[in-house]
Amino acid sequence: MKRITVLLCVIVGLSDLLLAQTSNMRYIDAKDLNLIGKITPTPQLYHRVDTARYRDFTPNQNILVTEAAGLALCFKTNSSRISVHTYFHSMGNGANMTGINQYGYDLYIKKNKEWLYAASKAKLEKDNLLPLISNMDTSQKECLLYLPAFSVIDSIKIGIDEQADIESLPNPFRHRIIIFGSSFTHGTSANRSGMSYPLMVERDTGLYIMNLGVSGNSKLQQSFARVLADADADVFIFDAFSNPSAKEIEERFDSFVKTIRASHPTTPLIFMQTIYREERNFDKRADRYEQDKMDMAEKIVKKAMQYDKNIYFINPKNYTGDDHVTSTDGIHPSALGYYRWAKTIEPLLLTILKKYHIE
Amino acid sequence: MKRITVLLCVIVGLSDLLLAQTSNMRYIDAKDLNLIGKITPTPQLYHRVDTARYRDFTPNQNILVTEAAGLALCFKTNSSRISVHTYFHSMGNGANMTGINQYGYDLYIKKNKEWLYAASKAKLEKDNLLPLISNMDTSQKECLLYLPAFSVIDSIKIGIDEQADIESLPNPFRHRIIIFGSSFTHGTSANRSGMSYPLMVERDTGLYIMNLGVSGNSKLQQSFARVLADADADVFIFDAFSNPSAKEIEERFDSFVKTIRASHPTTPLIFMQTIYREERNFDKRADRYEQDKMDMAEKIVKKAMQYDKNIYFINPKNYTGDDHVTSTDGIHPSALGYYRWAKTIEPLLLTILKKYHIE
Repeated sequence: MKRITVLLCVIVGLSDLLLAQTSNMRYIDAKDLNLIGKITPTPQLYHRVDTARYRDFTPNQNILVTEAAGLALCFKTNSSRISVHTYFHSMGNGANMTGINQYGYDLYIKKNKEWLYAASKAKLEKDNLLPLISNMDTSQKECLLYLPAFSVIDSIKIGIDEQADIESLPNPFRHRIIIFGSSFTHGTSANRSGMSYPLMVERDTGLYIMNLGVSGNSKLQQSFARVLADADADVFIFDAFSNPSAKEIEERFDSFVKTIRASHPTTPLIFMQTIYREERNFDKRADRYEQDKMDMAEKIVKKAMQYDKNIYFINPKNYTGDDHVTSTDGIHPSALGYYRWAKTIEPLLLTILKKYHIE
Repeated sequence: MKRITVLLCVIVGLSDLLLAQTSNMRYIDAKDLNLIGKITPTPQLYHRVDTARYRDFTPNQNILVTEAAGLALCFKTNSSRISVHTYFHSMGNGANMTGINQYGYDLYIKKNKEWLYAASKAKLEKDNLLPLISNMDTSQKECLLYLPAFSVIDSIKIGIDEQADIESLPNPFRHRIIIFGSSFTHGTSANRSGMSYPLMVERDTGLYIMNLGVSGNSKLQQSFARVLADADADVFIFDAFSNPSAKEIEERFDSFVKTIRASHPTTPLIFMQTIYREERNFDKRADRYEQDKMDMAEKIVKKAMQYDKNIYFINPKNYTGDDHVTSTDGIHPSALGYYRWAKTIEPLLLTILKKYHIE
């Protein structure tokens, strides 16, 4: 009897809390707010690539390019609370990252001209009513809400106080930079969706970075080159040497560049060397395989730079430090590793972009 | 037909890989290896507290104190591969951390006198055969294998090459330091189990830190004071102000100290201030509640220091930086936040411990 009473109290307590966080709220469809981060328009709002137009992806790639990594809603509100009601098509749930990164939201609010962390939460339910933040003052606030990085979303409604206002905000970021890459770029093992290295660089620099990270599938394929060739961009950044083998890099690099160059003849193409994977510390086979990739990447980009002066190579000694404390699973950096990655490439990127008056 | 063929190839491919990683291995029961990190012996090997002896915990606390946070196996082997076969009693699966931290393993190997990261992996299965690392050279290696931080374990077997040796290693760490604390100490939102801040300090300093982190339940209770009073320790560290309210801190602090002091009259008691929770940036109620706790903690420890010269207060301005980039869920630090926490307290701890010739 005592146990049942305790249990009932807990349930009632939780219901009260949920009620206080979500009662007397009104919901507006997020389709009426500004959605940033997509390299091209898509019929399904929260997809990154139109898989009906680009039909030569594998089934796995079709899922990856429709996941919401890097997408964000921009709005202004004076609500004291913000909730998100999502219908998920599919939700990521891998062991090497948080649910918050995979199917959660990551909210920033502008303060003193900077994007200050406000809240990040997640709940593993396809019909997902998520109270994100409460107890704010009711001044007008500019909000940047990053969507989940590893889930496919059918619809989103934003909940605010019944009497509060909400309106769409213009994209707060400048220029159009597209980044194509591996799970590192997609944000695998980042702690929340806004803490992938491209989005840290975005908020730090104010430069607009659209993310085509496709976990495990950034292999210099023509299928992706065609999507990028069709996109409108001032700059392309590539994390293109993390997924392919040395042989694939050798075989595919030139034609990958050629396809993009056909429609972007002089746009800067910035290739990043891949990172040191911590699994290499003792796994001799992984060490050899990874070093071969890095050697081939360096060789092939340096060759390309000889005939194309708008190709660049970012090749720091180690993006994630030399103290070997930054890995989550031997492959993917932790939040510490991604932070170091962002801080390492920021000055290198800015130096290149300055030549093109992108600043 | 094509799809079935592809699927079969994938399955066969995966089976081949698993076979190569686990075939011709022999398994030894980990009970024959040195298990470190427990403050007292327990009948159930992988529990941290004997819940048959200490009977005034809540059901939730009974689970928390039997989770394997901070425990590690010490052994030496010349195997080229290491696998772990675990029978889990229960496995954590919260949205604010990785599976690798909750139900995975975190392996370090001694190199140049330091513990170098080797591998960390996880699989969400109760009967859990986990290939951890392959392709190593066959020199003798000293291994430190941290157990999962949020799971209760019934048994563990370590798999090595059929022809390889394995033997138990003495505890590589010095002195006996017990830390009692909240989810922060338990390691919530750390990326892997060895990256909680106490274990980072352990590997950095060589000091032996036994972890009684009990997520959400470090509230200066007599139930925990009695466990600590019975334990053998050179030093106690407390993350004791993260979970209780200001009122609970005021009401419970003196009697908590008194119970421990009854059997440890002059042992150094080092109390840490709690950290700034990033949810405070915009949630006014959380901001007030947390500041009240911190104010009360500072007041009450400073008062205690006047009559007990072996009580200390660690109170840095902010353990996790002032750039607001270190949170996973508004409460718990990310890997970046825990790294900064460890690096902030290390010199402060070492200065105190030096007075007691603990170094």
